Amino acid sequence: MVTNSRRQPESKRQKMVGTCVISVFLILNLLPLFHTLEASHCNIKGFPLVRNISELQQDSYGIGGLSHITVAGSLLHGLKEVEVWLETFAPGSRTPIHRHSCEEVFVVLKGSGTLYLASSAHKSPGKPEEHFISPNSTFHIPVNDVHQVWNSNAHEDLQVLVIISRPPVKVFIYSDWSMPHTAAKLKFPIFWDEQCFEEPLHDEL
Amino acid sequence: MVTNSRRQPESKRQKMVGTCVISVFLILNLLPLFHTLEASHCNIKGFPLVRNISELQQDSYGIGGLSHITVAGSLLHGLKEVEVWLETFAPGSRTPIHRHSCEEVFVVLKGSGTLYLASSAHKSPGKPEEHFISPNSTFHIPVNDVHQVWNSNAHEDLQVLVIISRPPVKVFIYSDWSMPHTAAKLKFPIFWDEQCFEEPLHDEL
Repeated sequence: MVTNSRRQPESKRQKMVGTCVISVFLILNLLPLFHTLEASHCNIKGFPLVRNISELQQDSYGIGGLSHITVAGSLLHGLKEVEVWLETFAPGSRTPIHRHSCEEVFVVLKGSGTLYLASSAHKSPGKPEEHFISPNSTFHIPVNDVHQVWNSNAHEDLQVLVIISRPPVKVFIYSDWSMPHTAAKLKFPIFWDEQCFEEPLHDEL
Repeated sequence: MVTNSRRQPESKRQKMVGTCVISVFLILNLLPLFHTLEASHCNIKGFPLVRNISELQQDSYGIGGLSHITVAGSLLHGLKEVEVWLETFAPGSRTPIHRHSCEEVFVVLKGSGTLYLASSAHKSPGKPEEHFISPNSTFHIPVNDVHQVWNSNAHEDLQVLVIISRPPVKVFIYSDWSMPHTAAKLKFPIFWDEQCFEEPLHDEL
């Protein structure tokens, strides 16, 4: 290869060297930018103070019929005491049956549905109370009560703003209403927190 | 008077006595109802779980151009960790310049405006940063930062959902941006909490 390069005219060699230098320069300078772009979704300092909600990350996180946006979050935006989600449920879709040890407020922006709610006072939730979620309504879930929100309206999306305390949320999921509380499965971090969650460093000594 | 009553025919006397009995019966039975109606605005147990937001109490609380609804509150609904307000600012109206030691998230439902924000790091807020509040946006106020939200759009209402932690909120109000933090005036309970706030009982011994 060295021999080959010697055979090339001086001007061509210089041109190639110049191209190489520029390429390396570009790669070295753009690498941090690529890194920043990759990390920006979880980078608290990368967010402007006022954020357009329609430009925020939106995903179903594998839950059929769901669209979830973390409007203001603990892991994403550095909040410590509250977190706000914008969630849209297609007709027929629903949350898992679950509980969490934080307060939760729903504000219904669009549509209607059904709230199923059971207390945590017995060994298992048992048959839940059924509440109609009317359009333009609000309701809150007492700490640790087991609940499920269901878009039972076949013709319209159910869109809600969800506010929780004590973020990031630790959710216990039930396969059905007769499952004992002790058998409910912890999902932490929750689906939309997985990407930005960092395990705390353990002392290895 | 007794003499007069003796003069009336028996049937008329019986009729009057009957009317009196019915009146007293109605008054005694309706009094608790009137009491309940009067107390219901501040009665946690009197609220249904799912509440229609358009039926909740709405008032300006003496602040020109403001409409405030406590959607989910500490004093009204028994929440301990979060509180949610729906506020509408007419064109040109604004919050006072203020700070509070809790997190606060805004979700803009309608309109646009300006956020003025200054840190609490110096003796007084000083000249605040100016942020354009775009339609369909969100922003949050760091704990204790001094701020003011202004509907600077002359043609449209600004409607926001406001989420705070650590309710009921204790607000410190500034007359201008050069006022020292130590001179800011505590407003507690805040205007919309006054009606339902009860002073804690003091031990008088």
